[in-house]
Amino acid sequence: MNSDFVEMNVLYDFYGSLLTGKQMDIFKMYYMDDYSLGEISQELNISRQGVYDSLKRAESILKYYEDKLGLVKKYNDNMERLSKIKRSVDEVKKHISDKKALEALEDIEKEIDSLEL
Amino acid sequence: MNSDFVEMNVLYDFYGSLLTGKQMDIFKMYYMDDYSLGEISQELNISRQGVYDSLKRAESILKYYEDKLGLVKKYNDNMERLSKIKRSVDEVKKHISDKKALEALEDIEKEIDSLEL
Repeated sequence: MNSDFVEMNVLYDFYGSLLTGKQMDIFKMYYMDDYSLGEISQELNISRQGVYDSLKRAESILKYYEDKLGLVKKYNDNMERLSKIKRSVDEVKKHISDKKALEALEDIEKEIDSLEL
Repeated sequence: MNSDFVEMNVLYDFYGSLLTGKQMDIFKMYYMDDYSLGEISQELNISRQGVYDSLKRAESILKYYEDKLGLVKKYNDNMERLSKIKRSVDEVKKHISDKKALEALEDIEKEIDSLEL
Protein backbone atom coordinates (compact mmCIF):
# COMPACT_ATOMS: atom_id res chain seq x y z
CA MET A 1 0.00 0.00 0.00
CA ASN A 2 0.99 3.59 -0.30
CA SER A 3 2.66 4.64 2.91
CA ASP A 4 1.62 8.26 2.65
CA PHE A 5 -1.72 8.26 4.40
CA VAL A 6 -2.04 12.04 4.22
CA GLU A 7 -1.51 12.05 0.46
CA MET A 8 -4.03 9.26 0.02
CA ASN A 9 -6.62 11.03 2.15
CA VAL A 10 -6.19 14.26 0.21
CA LEU A 11 -6.56 12.46 -3.11
CA TYR A 12 -9.67 10.78 -1.78
CA ASP A 13 -11.14 14.16 -0.80
CA PHE A 14 -10.90 15.29 -4.40
CA TYR A 15 -11.54 12.16 -6.41
CA GLY A 16 -13.14 9.67 -4.02
CA SER A 17 -16.50 10.13 -5.73
CA LEU A 18 -15.03 8.48 -8.82
CA LEU A 19 -14.41 5.17 -7.04
CA THR A 20 -16.94 2.35 -6.88
CA GLY A 21 -18.84 1.87 -3.62
CA LYS A 22 -16.75 -1.16 -2.72
CA GLN A 23 -13.49 0.65 -3.46
CA MET A 24 -14.66 3.56 -1.30
CA ASP A 25 -15.50 1.26 1.62
CA ILE A 26 -12.17 -0.54 1.54
CA PHE A 27 -10.23 2.66 1.00
CA LYS A 28 -11.85 4.36 3.97
CA MET A 29 -11.37 1.36 6.27
CA TYR A 30 -7.70 1.17 5.39
CA TYR A 31 -6.70 4.82 5.06
CA MET A 32 -9.08 6.52 7.46
CA ASP A 33 -10.15 3.95 10.04
CA ASP A 34 -6.78 2.24 10.28
CA TYR A 35 -7.98 -1.31 9.65
CA SER A 36 -5.36 -3.83 8.52
CA LEU A 37 -5.81 -5.77 5.30
CA GLY A 38 -6.65 -8.85 7.36
CA GLU A 39 -9.27 -7.03 9.37
CA ILE A 40 -10.93 -5.62 6.25
CA SER A 41 -10.86 -9.09 4.72
CA GLN A 42 -12.68 -10.53 7.75
CA GLU A 43 -15.10 -7.64 8.09
CA LEU A 44 -16.20 -7.60 4.45
CA ASN A 45 -15.80 -11.32 3.83
CA ILE A 46 -13.43 -10.78 0.91
CA SER A 47 -10.07 -12.53 0.47
CA ARG A 48 -7.04 -10.64 1.70
CA GLN A 49 -5.79 -10.59 -1.88
CA GLY A 50 -9.11 -9.13 -3.00
CA VAL A 51 -8.79 -6.35 -0.44
CA TYR A 52 -5.23 -5.67 -1.54
CA ASP A 53 -6.17 -5.56 -5.24
CA SER A 54 -9.09 -3.26 -4.59
CA LEU A 55 -6.93 -0.85 -2.59
CA LYS A 56 -4.21 -0.82 -5.23
CA ARG A 57 -6.80 -0.21 -7.93
CA ALA A 58 -8.37 2.63 -5.94
CA GLU A 59 -4.96 4.24 -5.38
CA SER A 60 -4.11 4.10 -9.04
CA ILE A 61 -7.49 5.56 -10.00
CA LEU A 62 -7.02 8.50 -7.62
CA LYS A 63 -3.51 9.11 -8.91
CA TYR A 64 -4.65 8.86 -12.52
CA TYR A 65 -7.20 11.62 -11.98
CA GLU A 66 -4.73 13.84 -10.16
CA ASP A 67 -2.38 13.34 -13.07
CA LYS A 68 -5.10 14.38 -15.53
CA LEU A 69 -6.88 17.13 -13.56
CA GLY A 70 -4.30 18.30 -11.01
CA LEU A 71 -6.92 19.44 -8.49
CA VAL A 72 -4.73 18.74 -5.46
CA LYS A 73 -1.87 20.75 -6.90
CA LYS A 74 -4.24 23.59 -7.78
CA TYR A 75 -5.71 23.47 -4.29
CA ASN A 76 -2.29 23.69 -2.65
CA ASP A 77 -1.26 26.58 -4.89
CA ASN A 78 -4.48 28.41 -4.11
CA MET A 79 -4.08 27.86 -0.38
CA GLU A 80 -0.73 29.61 -0.55
CA ARG A 81 -2.31 32.52 -2.40
CA LEU A 82 -5.11 32.66 0.16
CA SER A 83 -2.60 32.88 3.00
CA LYS A 84 -0.95 35.81 1.27
CA ILE A 85 -4.31 37.49 0.76
CA LYS A 86 -5.16 37.04 4.44
CA ARG A 87 -1.84 38.49 5.50
CA SER A 88 -2.44 41.48 3.22
CA VAL A 89 -5.92 41.96 4.66
CA ASP A 90 -4.38 42.07 8.14
CA GLU A 91 -1.82 44.55 6.85
CA VAL A 92 -4.54 46.83 5.49
CA LYS A 93 -6.37 46.62 8.81
CA LYS A 94 -3.32 47.81 10.69
CA HIS A 95 -3.23 51.02 8.71
CA ILE A 96 -6.83 52.12 8.59
CA SER A 97 -9.53 53.20 10.99
CA ASP A 98 -12.33 54.23 8.63
CA LYS A 99 -15.46 52.34 9.64
CA LYS A 100 -16.76 51.69 6.12
CA ALA A 101 -13.38 50.50 4.96
CA LEU A 102 -13.17 48.11 7.91
CA GLU A 103 -16.63 46.79 7.15
CA ALA A 104 -15.72 46.16 3.53
CA LEU A 105 -12.58 44.38 4.71
CA GLU A 106 -14.70 42.12 6.85
CA ASP A 107 -16.82 41.34 3.81
CA ILE A 108 -13.65 40.42 1.95
CA GLU A 109 -12.59 38.07 4.73
CA LYS A 110 -16.00 36.43 4.78
CA GLU A 111 -16.08 35.88 1.03
CA ILE A 112 -12.52 34.57 1.03
CA ASP A 113 -13.46 31.99 3.65
CA SER A 114 -16.44 30.92 1.56
CA LEU A 115 -14.36 30.21 -1.54
CA GLU A 116 -14.47 26.51 -2.37
CA LEU A 117 -10.95 25.61 -3.39
CA MET B 1 -25.70 16.83 -30.51
CA ASN B 2 -26.02 19.09 -27.55
CA SER B 3 -27.20 22.48 -28.75
CA ASP B 4 -25.54 24.40 -25.94
CA PHE B 5 -22.11 25.10 -27.37
CA VAL B 6 -21.12 27.31 -24.45
CA GLU B 7 -21.95 24.59 -21.92
CA MET B 8 -20.03 22.03 -23.93
CA ASN B 9 -16.99 24.28 -24.22
CA VAL B 10 -16.99 24.96 -20.48
CA LEU B 11 -17.25 21.26 -19.69
CA TYR B 12 -14.39 20.62 -22.09
CA ASP B 13 -12.25 23.23 -20.32
CA PHE B 14 -12.58 21.30 -17.09
CA TYR B 15 -12.69 17.67 -18.17
CA GLY B 16 -11.37 17.59 -21.73
CA SER B 17 -8.14 15.98 -20.55
CA LEU B 18 -10.16 12.89 -19.64
CA LEU B 19 -11.21 12.25 -23.24
CA THR B 20 -9.24 10.11 -25.67
CA GLY B 21 -7.19 11.89 -28.31
CA LYS B 22 -9.72 11.02 -31.01
CA GLN B 23 -12.65 12.21 -28.89
CA MET B 24 -10.79 15.46 -28.24
CA ASP B 25 -10.14 16.03 -31.94
CA ILE B 26 -13.73 15.43 -32.96
CA PHE B 27 -15.09 17.42 -30.04
CA LYS B 28 -12.93 20.43 -30.85
CA MET B 29 -13.76 20.32 -34.57
CA TYR B 30 -17.47 20.23 -33.82
CA TYR B 31 -17.82 22.49 -30.80
CA MET B 32 -14.97 24.92 -31.29
CA ASP B 33 -14.18 25.03 -35.00
CA ASP B 34 -17.77 24.72 -36.15
CA TYR B 35 -17.30 21.78 -38.52
CA SER B 36 -20.40 19.80 -39.45
CA LEU B 37 -20.59 16.06 -38.82
CA GLY B 38 -20.16 15.49 -42.56
CA GLU B 39 -17.08 17.69 -42.74
CA ILE B 40 -15.47 15.95 -39.75
CA SER B 41 -16.30 12.61 -41.34
CA GLN B 42 -14.52 13.61 -44.56
CA GLU B 43 -11.61 15.28 -42.82
CA LEU B 44 -10.82 12.36 -40.49
CA ASN B 45 -11.95 9.61 -42.86
CA ILE B 46 -14.42 8.19 -40.33
CA SER B 47 -18.06 7.36 -41.06
CA ARG B 48 -20.59 10.05 -40.21
CA GLN B 49 -22.11 7.63 -37.70
CA GLY B 50 -18.68 7.11 -36.14
CA VAL B 51 -18.26 10.86 -35.72
CA TYR B 52 -21.72 11.12 -34.21
CA ASP B 53 -21.10 8.26 -31.76
CA SER B 54 -17.76 9.67 -30.70
CA LEU B 55 -19.26 13.09 -30.05
CA LYS B 56 -22.16 11.64 -28.07
CA ARG B 57 -19.74 9.55 -26.05
CA ALA B 58 -17.51 12.55 -25.35
CA GLU B 59 -20.49 14.62 -24.24
CA SER B 60 -21.67 11.96 -21.86
CA ILE B 61 -18.17 11.54 -20.41
CA LEU B 62 -17.89 15.27 -19.74
CA LYS B 63 -21.33 15.34 -18.14
CA TYR B 64 -20.56 12.27 -16.06
CA TYR B 65 -17.51 13.96 -14.55
CA GLU B 66 -19.36 17.19 -13.87
CA ASP B 67 -22.01 15.13 -12.14
CA LYS B 68 -19.35 13.45 -9.99
CA LEU B 69 -16.93 16.32 -9.36
CA GLY B 70 -19.02 19.45 -9.93
CA LEU B 71 -16.05 21.59 -10.95
CA VAL B 72 -18.05 23.84 -13.26
CA LYS B 73 -20.61 24.54 -10.57
CA LYS B 74 -17.84 25.24 -8.06
CA TYR B 75 -16.13 27.52 -10.55
CA ASN B 76 -19.30 29.52 -11.16
CA ASP B 77 -19.97 29.84 -7.43
CA ASN B 78 -16.41 30.99 -6.84
CA MET B 79 -16.58 33.53 -9.65
CA GLU B 80 -19.57 35.12 -7.93
CA ARG B 81 -17.64 35.28 -4.66
CA LEU B 82 -14.65 36.78 -6.48
CA SER B 83 -16.82 39.52 -7.94
CA LYS B 84 -18.05 40.36 -4.46
CA ILE B 85 -14.49 40.42 -3.16
CA LYS B 86 -13.44 42.76 -5.96
CA ARG B 87 -16.34 45.07 -5.26
CA SER B 88 -15.38 45.13 -1.59
CA VAL B 89 -11.77 45.89 -2.46
CA ASP B 90 -12.97 48.87 -4.51
CA GLU B 91 -15.13 49.91 -1.57
CA VAL B 92 -12.15 49.82 0.80
CA LYS B 93 -10.12 51.87 -1.68
CA LYS B 94 -12.73 54.59 -1.75
CA HIS B 95 -12.39 55.13 1.98
CA ILE B 96 -8.68 55.07 2.57
CA SER B 97 -5.64 57.08 1.61
CA ASP B 98 -2.90 55.45 3.68
CA LYS B 99 -0.08 54.44 1.34
CA LYS B 100 0.78 51.14 3.03
CA ALA B 101 -2.86 50.14 3.18
CA LEU B 102 -3.25 50.90 -0.53
CA GLU B 103 -0.16 48.86 -1.33
CA ALA B 104 -1.48 45.91 0.65
CA LEU B 105 -4.79 46.24 -1.20
CA GLU B 106 -2.94 46.05 -4.49
CA ASP B 107 -1.27 42.86 -3.27
CA ILE B 108 -4.71 41.47 -2.49
CA GLU B 109 -5.93 42.29 -5.98
CA LYS B 110 -2.89 40.66 -7.55
CA GLU B 111 -3.24 37.46 -5.54
CA ILE B 112 -6.96 37.30 -6.22
CA ASP B 113 -6.28 37.47 -9.94
CA SER B 114 -3.74 34.68 -9.64
CA LEU B 115 -6.18 32.26 -7.98
CA GLU B 116 -6.81 29.28 -10.25
CA LEU B 117 -10.51 28.60 -9.99
